[in-house]
Amino acid sequence: MFNLDSYLISQQKRINHALESLLKITDKPDRILEAMTYSLMASGKRIRPVLCVAAAEAAGGNPEGVLPAACALEMVHTYSLIHDDLPAMDDDALRRGKPTCHMAFDEATAILAGDALLTLAFQTLSNIGLSNAEQAAKWLHVIRLISYAAGYCGMIQGQMLDITSEGRQLSLAELKSMHRLKTGALIEASLSSGAVLGGLNSNKITRLESYAQNIGLAFQVADDILNIEGDPEIMGKAAGTDKLRNKNTYPSLLGLKESKNFAGQLVENALQALKSFDQKAEPLRAIARYIIERKK
Amino acid sequence: MFNLDSYLISQQKRINHALESLLKITDKPDRILEAMTYSLMASGKRIRPVLCVAAAEAAGGNPEGVLPAACALEMVHTYSLIHDDLPAMDDDALRRGKPTCHMAFDEATAILAGDALLTLAFQTLSNIGLSNAEQAAKWLHVIRLISYAAGYCGMIQGQMLDITSEGRQLSLAELKSMHRLKTGALIEASLSSGAVLGGLNSNKITRLESYAQNIGLAFQVADDILNIEGDPEIMGKAAGTDKLRNKNTYPSLLGLKESKNFAGQLVENALQALKSFDQKAEPLRAIARYIIERKK
Repeated sequence: MFNLDSYLISQQKRINHALESLLKITDKPDRILEAMTYSLMASGKRIRPVLCVAAAEAAGGNPEGVLPAACALEMVHTYSLIHDDLPAMDDDALRRGKPTCHMAFDEATAILAGDALLTLAFQTLSNIGLSNAEQAAKWLHVIRLISYAAGYCGMIQGQMLDITSEGRQLSLAELKSMHRLKTGALIEASLSSGAVLGGLNSNKITRLESYAQNIGLAFQVADDILNIEGDPEIMGKAAGTDKLRNKNTYPSLLGLKESKNFAGQLVENALQALKSFDQKAEPLRAIARYIIERKK
Repeated sequence: MFNLDSYLISQQKRINHALESLLKITDKPDRILEAMTYSLMASGKRIRPVLCVAAAEAAGGNPEGVLPAACALEMVHTYSLIHDDLPAMDDDALRRGKPTCHMAFDEATAILAGDALLTLAFQTLSNIGLSNAEQAAKWLHVIRLISYAAGYCGMIQGQMLDITSEGRQLSLAELKSMHRLKTGALIEASLSSGAVLGGLNSNKITRLESYAQNIGLAFQVADDILNIEGDPEIMGKAAGTDKLRNKNTYPSLLGLKESKNFAGQLVENALQALKSFDQKAEPLRAIARYIIERKK
């Protein structure tokens, strides 16, 4: 029987180890490298890298081989958090229970550390496969997937929509579209990157994309529910903050019960999309279930 | 006889046209895309793209084929200007005679527009050659060159050194090393990208790197000289600002006359490095001479 807990722990350990190596750029780290390390090595769940590795496994590929992509995805995610937390953006002082990057360092350092992590992601993705032309084409494909998801057509437009929708009531369609851009796009890219590197055929990639869209949205809905029902002790952050901020959430639009039904349906859809995959997709199935069962 | 003026005008036209196409992402541009366009299409000299194209020509390659790299280099350069101008960084209100991005829009938009341009650069570089494995390897190489130059080991560390050295007297070695990172690295990457795509052999690439290092530094020294002697009418910006800001410059360290000798020597070195190149390197030679003769 597949054990998700031990799978997640061993993957997170492997990913953290790889990230640490990639940050060992110099023996004398300056303030920027310290800030990059501070934010990147904060205790994140490494959801995107784990999804990338699990997708490669589901494709029958070698999970070790996708580690540069897994690390690049976490760098892109962390850069977006650092910039989103800035005073000119969401102006957050705490992240995962620790001072945000600009609070721990300063604003200029946080801007540059974010820029540096985004750039390091592409450096990491391009630092491989140069001697093997076929490999090079795969990595170029992955760079295209990740840059598209991270850029204007994905995360960045999502963050802009998030900022401009503050204080305005969104429709369900608008809320979904905002999340699809802000968090969904990079989650989709995590799975498709792993699948491309793992050698999945294009028919199955389409199904994996459906899985990705469903769990991406489920993850957000579950987050909104946790913000109401979660235990601040377990989560390491305050609950009820969305309501205080008058934030657009699924529970505020659909009610709590209907939101839970919605999240459950999305996870069902995700599992359905994996129907033609064999037992190598077990980690992906377990992650889908975990999304609505997690307590933090 | 080679005419640099008409060469620059035709290259700039071609590059601006390609940049405009790359910005046509949607029919309904939002505030972010407007800000990206505002900064990217401001009347820059397009030095880095022109160097990339000229390097490809010197290598005997097809200049049309390197346009995506040329455009990506300008996007990276523009993103760095937008972020450097932010209140938390250099806090500049004007750039090329126009309000800076955060003045024309707002701070959040400027941060995101910079992020989006940096990401669009890598999207542009990876959007090609997928069907041709050999081409893919070349573009992956170019992504490695540009991300390295733009990242922590290049531009970003240079900007941090620039910020932290404000108000402190630098040595000539420190000033050179700061400029080598802040502006030199991307100029070197512009030339090596063009050379790799143009198919230059590795022996000649080493010589082109020497050319790049020399003109990169010469460009900075000439800029410092222009800030003292330039005509504000022609330059489109105020003169004498470095002295007012107590900035570390070559004239402040070496004196004006010695700085001119130094710039001249650097251009001589650059021309020397191109000795084994044929007449296809004429644009590169003319650009080297232009650097110290220009009035803006």
